[in-house]
Amino acid sequence: MLLKDLRTAVLEANLEIVRRGLVLYTFGNASGVDREQGLMVIKPSGVDYDDLRPEHMVVTDLQGTIVDGALKPSSDLDTHTLLYREFPSIGAIVHTHSEFATSFAQAGLSIPALGTTHADYFYGAIPCTVPLSDEACGGRYVHETGVAIVQHFQNNAIDPLAVPACLVAGHAPFVWGKDAHDAAHNAVVLEAVAKMAYKTLTLVPGHPGVSQALLDRHYFRKHGATATYGQ
Amino acid sequence: MLLKDLRTAVLEANLEIVRRGLVLYTFGNASGVDREQGLMVIKPSGVDYDDLRPEHMVVTDLQGTIVDGALKPSSDLDTHTLLYREFPSIGAIVHTHSEFATSFAQAGLSIPALGTTHADYFYGAIPCTVPLSDEACGGRYVHETGVAIVQHFQNNAIDPLAVPACLVAGHAPFVWGKDAHDAAHNAVVLEAVAKMAYKTLTLVPGHPGVSQALLDRHYFRKHGATATYGQ
Amino acid sequence: MLLKDLRTAVLEANLEIVRRGLVLYTFGNASGVDREQGLMVIKPSGVDYDDLRPEHMVVTDLQGTIVDGALKPSSDLDTHTLLYREFPSIGAIVHTHSEFATSFAQAGLSIPALGTTHADYFYGAIPCTVPLSDEACGGRYVHETGVAIVQHFQNNAIDPLAVPACLVAGHAPFVWGKDAHDAAHNAVVLEAVAKMAYKTLTLVPGHPGVSQALLDRHYFRKHGATATYGQ
Amino acid sequence: MLLKDLRTAVLEANLEIVRRGLVLYTFGNASGVDREQGLMVIKPSGVDYDDLRPEHMVVTDLQGTIVDGALKPSSDLDTHTLLYREFPSIGAIVHTHSEFATSFAQAGLSIPALGTTHADYFYGAIPCTVPLSDEACGGRYVHETGVAIVQHFQNNAIDPLAVPACLVAGHAPFVWGKDAHDAAHNAVVLEAVAKMAYKTLTLVPGHPGVSQALLDRHYFRKHGATATYGQ
Repeated sequence: MLLKDLRTAVLEANLEIVRRGLVLYTFGNASGVDREQGLMVIKPSGVDYDDLRPEHMVVTDLQGTIVDGALKPSSDLDTHTLLYREFPSIGAIVHTHSEFATSFAQAGLSIPALGTTHADYFYGAIPCTVPLSDEACGGRYVHETGVAIVQHFQNNAIDPLAVPACLVAGHAPFVWGKDAHDAAHNAVVLEAVAKMAYKTLTLVPGHPGVSQALLDRHYFRKHGATATYGQ
Repeated sequence: MLLKDLRTAVLEANLEIVRRGLVLYTFGNASGVDREQGLMVIKPSGVDYDDLRPEHMVVTDLQGTIVDGALKPSSDLDTHTLLYREFPSIGAIVHTHSEFATSFAQAGLSIPALGTTHADYFYGAIPCTVPLSDEACGGRYVHETGVAIVQHFQNNAIDPLAVPACLVAGHAPFVWGKDAHDAAHNAVVLEAVAKMAYKTLTLVPGHPGVSQALLDRHYFRKHGATATYGQ
Repeated sequence: MLLKDLRTAVLEANLEIVRRGLVLYTFGNASGVDREQGLMVIKPSGVDYDDLRPEHMVVTDLQGTIVDGALKPSSDLDTHTLLYREFPSIGAIVHTHSEFATSFAQAGLSIPALGTTHADYFYGAIPCTVPLSDEACGGRYVHETGVAIVQHFQNNAIDPLAVPACLVAGHAPFVWGKDAHDAAHNAVVLEAVAKMAYKTLTLVPGHPGVSQALLDRHYFRKHGATATYGQ
Repeated sequence: MLLKDLRTAVLEANLEIVRRGLVLYTFGNASGVDREQGLMVIKPSGVDYDDLRPEHMVVTDLQGTIVDGALKPSSDLDTHTLLYREFPSIGAIVHTHSEFATSFAQAGLSIPALGTTHADYFYGAIPCTVPLSDEACGGRYVHETGVAIVQHFQNNAIDPLAVPACLVAGHAPFVWGKDAHDAAHNAVVLEAVAKMAYKTLTLVPGHPGVSQALLDRHYFRKHGATATYGQ
């Protein structure tokens, strides 16, 4: 079977976001990429999670052409392929409508770095895109969703691996990581961070977030050459 | 047994809303209609969900006259029958006091379309009726509850299948669908949408909702001749 | 064993409030009264719910003198005995620190009748007492807690069975009913009502509540000679 | 095995905070101290809770030098050691990023004593430190986190056993107790207290908290020579 290990890892990421309560019915999907082969593996569209098996995963190239699979790929396919093409450092993508992260996306608000839970994973605010234009909604909408994300990161010179998530205004979060496990983990942490940001910002509206010094300290405790966390 | 499959489907819808946490004790009910026979099947009043069996379901005509069943039908029967008579396209109705949708009903607020989760299921705001008049409360109250719903949809020219839910002011939501599975599914999604709307509106009071273009894009992705979602 | 059935019913009420998530560790208690014998049965103080057996329940008279039982009664005993003496129509009392009802008690706010879930169980606002005076806190505090409840109901001519709960300011709710099952049920419904009132009042601060006509309609649907709900 | 019982108690405290929903992935740690031997036992860094065994616990002296253990200790080690050195009355420490307590820490707000649930455990407001300076973040950060806690308690003459928790601004709570069971219990109660404080303060912004008389009454009901609660 083509890309057997990646299929299993992508399936596992899809199941992890369900186990953690990020997904209602089929509102979510995960994919992973094999950079050497230029192929990606993605969840099929609208299939119950209980029934998902590695062989149901759909394999496409990075233009979205199906290479292997009997089922239709996730309807968000064109966002995934664009992100893989434009963010060459990422290895997997997770999309959910998780409650609190989606509420920030609906509000059109980025999530400032309000504490160390955030700073351990996201080096700065988790951004929210501008709303998609009527032209984008009426045109290649799923592709344009990816464009909104990529433009925000490029215009603001944000490293996608340093801030591995983006809220799409009026929609929901897209989250990524170096591999499928990492992307699902980041999606779970994003939801926890969004939960606490909601409470913090309703207690102290307009809270500016932590200092750059605290952000640096926590982020680099878990990332880069100077990381000290874990075994 | 009369309407055997419909009884099973209605029982399953009643159980689904319990499993999804929409029902405390016996605060909820589901019904389904057989349009050819002009009969409907509804949960009995105040019976524990654990004990419900298909044979407990009550069969009535669309005027509410009991045709089959030893138990009293749900006390909301007259709302159900009126909705079936006035909304000929719907096949099932679910009523719950689910936490967030009911909070909007109590607040007397409709739920604007704040994001794509909403737009995937509801083509526009989920409306809230005006409060029932003292006369309506003192008269054929359960019937008048249905009247408030129907009048709102007729006065505002809303297609009941395009917006398959209504909040009754000071009470709770009524939700419907093309069949019992669909109605229960819509009730679960309504609660998820209401949860996120609550957070969005407390973060950004007065948020106007998404653009018509985004609403169109998502709604017609899952509905109508141009639907692309699922297998 | 003295009052065997009442012990079992009181134990079951204690377990129901745990199962429904109203109790953290040992922060809650239930009691029941036998009016003919002038005796009450109450949970012992600070015992794990997992270990509770009917024989652990403590029997006292309505002055709080222990008649049977090897364990110390709940530290809230004097509130229970006063309520039984002053509210002769009630048969059982439940005290919890359930999250939302306690938050209203801490806020010093009564819970207005904002919807029919409330109106089905509570005929008007669920009142909050005034804060206990320093003298009351320093004196017979547990007794004075009961005094605050009783005075509120007497001064406002509220029938304790029509509004079977009171919030004690800065403390938590006391809930009662005609028997132990009913009191526990009312405590669970109070928490659900408080959850929805919290959302409603943060969406629409100062919401005045439903009309008297709607309150009448729903309350008398489930109570009194004209009740129509259930089998 | 060195400090066998303490390892078991510390492991159990680590598991209790997971069971109670205070910990996401590995975001938390507990330790305990043996005052006679001048040694402490702490959770290893970044290990899954499912895999934790007593022999994985790391033993250090109160300067943080590892005395026994193959794994790296929790990255928060230097906060724990400082607290043990400066607060000689405490026997164990628990650190979590529990949702509501962390939200207050992020907001930079102490939690006032708003009710008796709080007063039963914490004799006054649960304080929040000032934000750590850039120098502290850039220097011996983990040690400085402990310094911020200790200075707050010393400058305000707070007895650490009377208020067994502190929120670190922009970070999360540290909680302690006379032993590991007590510290974990206090961490669970802190989260419950924070949950209710959040609701209370969003209903009544600026609520000043309960009277000193009520605080005294409840705190001394469970603590000190005059305690009456429990068996």
